[in-house]
Amino acid sequence: MTESVGTVGTVKTQYFTFAEPPNELTLESGEKLGPITLTYETYGKLNRDKSNAVLVLHAFSGDAHAAGFLEGDKDSGWWDDFIGPGKGIDTNEYFVICSNVLGGCKGSTGPSSINPKTGKPYGLEFPIITIGDMVNAQRRLINHLGIEKLLAVVGGSMGGMQVLQWMVAYPDRIRSAIPIATTMKHTPQQIAFNEVGRQAVMADPNWRNGNYYGGKVPAKGLAVARMIGHITYMSDTSMADKFGRRTKAEKDPFKFSADFEVEGYLRYRGDNFVKRFDANSYLYITKAIDYFNILNGHSLGSIFKGLKAKVFVIAFKSDWLYPAYQSQEIVKACKLAGVDASYCEINSTYGHDAFLLEIEQETQLIRHFLKTVSNGNGNGAQHA
Amino acid sequence: MTESVGTVGTVKTQYFTFAEPPNELTLESGEKLGPITLTYETYGKLNRDKSNAVLVLHAFSGDAHAAGFLEGDKDSGWWDDFIGPGKGIDTNEYFVICSNVLGGCKGSTGPSSINPKTGKPYGLEFPIITIGDMVNAQRRLINHLGIEKLLAVVGGSMGGMQVLQWMVAYPDRIRSAIPIATTMKHTPQQIAFNEVGRQAVMADPNWRNGNYYGGKVPAKGLAVARMIGHITYMSDTSMADKFGRRTKAEKDPFKFSADFEVEGYLRYRGDNFVKRFDANSYLYITKAIDYFNILNGHSLGSIFKGLKAKVFVIAFKSDWLYPAYQSQEIVKACKLAGVDASYCEINSTYGHDAFLLEIEQETQLIRHFLKTVSNGNGNGAQHA
Repeated sequence: MTESVGTVGTVKTQYFTFAEPPNELTLESGEKLGPITLTYETYGKLNRDKSNAVLVLHAFSGDAHAAGFLEGDKDSGWWDDFIGPGKGIDTNEYFVICSNVLGGCKGSTGPSSINPKTGKPYGLEFPIITIGDMVNAQRRLINHLGIEKLLAVVGGSMGGMQVLQWMVAYPDRIRSAIPIATTMKHTPQQIAFNEVGRQAVMADPNWRNGNYYGGKVPAKGLAVARMIGHITYMSDTSMADKFGRRTKAEKDPFKFSADFEVEGYLRYRGDNFVKRFDANSYLYITKAIDYFNILNGHSLGSIFKGLKAKVFVIAFKSDWLYPAYQSQEIVKACKLAGVDASYCEINSTYGHDAFLLEIEQETQLIRHFLKTVSNGNGNGAQHA
Repeated sequence: MTESVGTVGTVKTQYFTFAEPPNELTLESGEKLGPITLTYETYGKLNRDKSNAVLVLHAFSGDAHAAGFLEGDKDSGWWDDFIGPGKGIDTNEYFVICSNVLGGCKGSTGPSSINPKTGKPYGLEFPIITIGDMVNAQRRLINHLGIEKLLAVVGGSMGGMQVLQWMVAYPDRIRSAIPIATTMKHTPQQIAFNEVGRQAVMADPNWRNGNYYGGKVPAKGLAVARMIGHITYMSDTSMADKFGRRTKAEKDPFKFSADFEVEGYLRYRGDNFVKRFDANSYLYITKAIDYFNILNGHSLGSIFKGLKAKVFVIAFKSDWLYPAYQSQEIVKACKLAGVDASYCEINSTYGHDAFLLEIEQETQLIRHFLKTVSNGNGNGAQHA
């Protein structure tokens, strides 16, 4: 860390509601959804020619609050170590935007929002949404901000899927793309982990077919779902480093209490998640991830054809949820299409969580990449 | 398959109740449990000098019914392809014994058994049991059958843990040992998968602190637990081969139905498991697995010191639940102690399930090994 590294300070979550017609969105399923609100935050300043905007895309359980501190909140944003003055995405240089996804539960329109037709929360009346729908909604926000071309779109995990979606759906709106620890489509194993999580939520009698708003939430089911997630986010090694087989000093007299530290950790993470996440959003967003298939009938060599943006793919060696071979497929697809793509596989024992934890390595790599693109050396750069 | 390969035919499950004093077992926890019944089956004939007995040890959800057909049942035993006339464990040569573990729910004493003190099912009154307790109970059965020395103990997964336990607890009672796809102790990741399964069971309101006998069983929770298990039993590759991203032709109109084949498969396996397994046994047995640590304070080099049995360790390349490195540790421990141990890593894409599926390779390998031991060429053989 150099002396110049700092925080973006106190930030404010903003709301963008589709005001201009159409004030609704035609979803990939054909259904129409509206009105739609997206929550978002911005850090840094948009320059005069609006060429320094970086769109940060969050992972499954993330939100618009990527950096800085919200009034009265002591916890910083989810990628605060990476976004700020002098940091990996330097807010002295770039204007950073992060929005909560459609279907989410952090202020953006989702299943817990009020359905204007009934005056009650949507619940399962909310339509099935896709990663494509999320990106289409984001594009409206980018239009609203008056940005013609994003300097970069960057995100890990589900955020990386949105990056890929931008590359395919709006190739002319981006100068570069950084998909991290992600995949072009879920394998059956990845679908299976999500499905078990959904089953855990729906097995909770409090779920009541999604109509739990105003009553008891399906807390136990959602906690179990989150625990499964956490196992897949870590690696065998990182768990061994963190917990070993250590048992807790004081045992609960109750049988099947959390004897091992790893058990206590999972229970804590599970219970904590319930306080901040909506169970129906869990169902909708995991399903969007499972449906995601950027190829969707196209060949590997044709999917990125004509893309002029510069692409930088990052994977982590110990990530077994989105193994490196899936990132290598992205690179291959780029190369087959003649896209200027580079690849880096970072040595890390953190598993999938590495994209949130290997900040120093990501900072070195991405800072240079953004500078190159910004200086117009990248393909598709405005000044090239 | 050669012409001589056949089936053991119709078999009968037998019951052994500790009759001679002590008719109870002092558990590793210090608690006493009794009376105890173990269900078991035998195939083949015990020879005159009782030197041809092979004890087969089942995995987590297995039972005593390893081969042949029970009266009126069309499904064969869980390792039927591997046990029988002319098969991997040739019942023309060997007398095979398989018993359901203590704590189980297939006839052996477990949490669903009647507690003689209350006249009601034990539920959570059942004491915590360990892999050591399971093996101590098995030894009583072996005594009862009048067998001084087993030709071999063989088993995969939790069965392999019991093999290791036999090697340490009763080294003089075995001439050989074949631990397959197993580990000397659970890592935090392995504990974590079990713990999430337990949480899913206990989150089900029908679980009622274990007092569900005679009422509704915690079916949904147990099904979720089993689904998690099934993901860990398969590999990324075997799932991709089996399901791909194929979706089911007919869609349930209900949202969050099983769109993908892998989802339908998991739901089927989960629901099916509930019909044949007791939720409390799930809790007790997974906890026994998590507590298992054959080292238990001993050094790697000392744990198998003095063992004269011949050891054959088998692992599978795509098994990520019990990765090959954990089997290699067993081999290393044997070698450090001067034990005659060999190792084979089988090429398979089936993941952990491979120990039940790679029958042809196991047959070749284990048939020769047993013959060698039987012919007295192995260390610790009676005729050596």
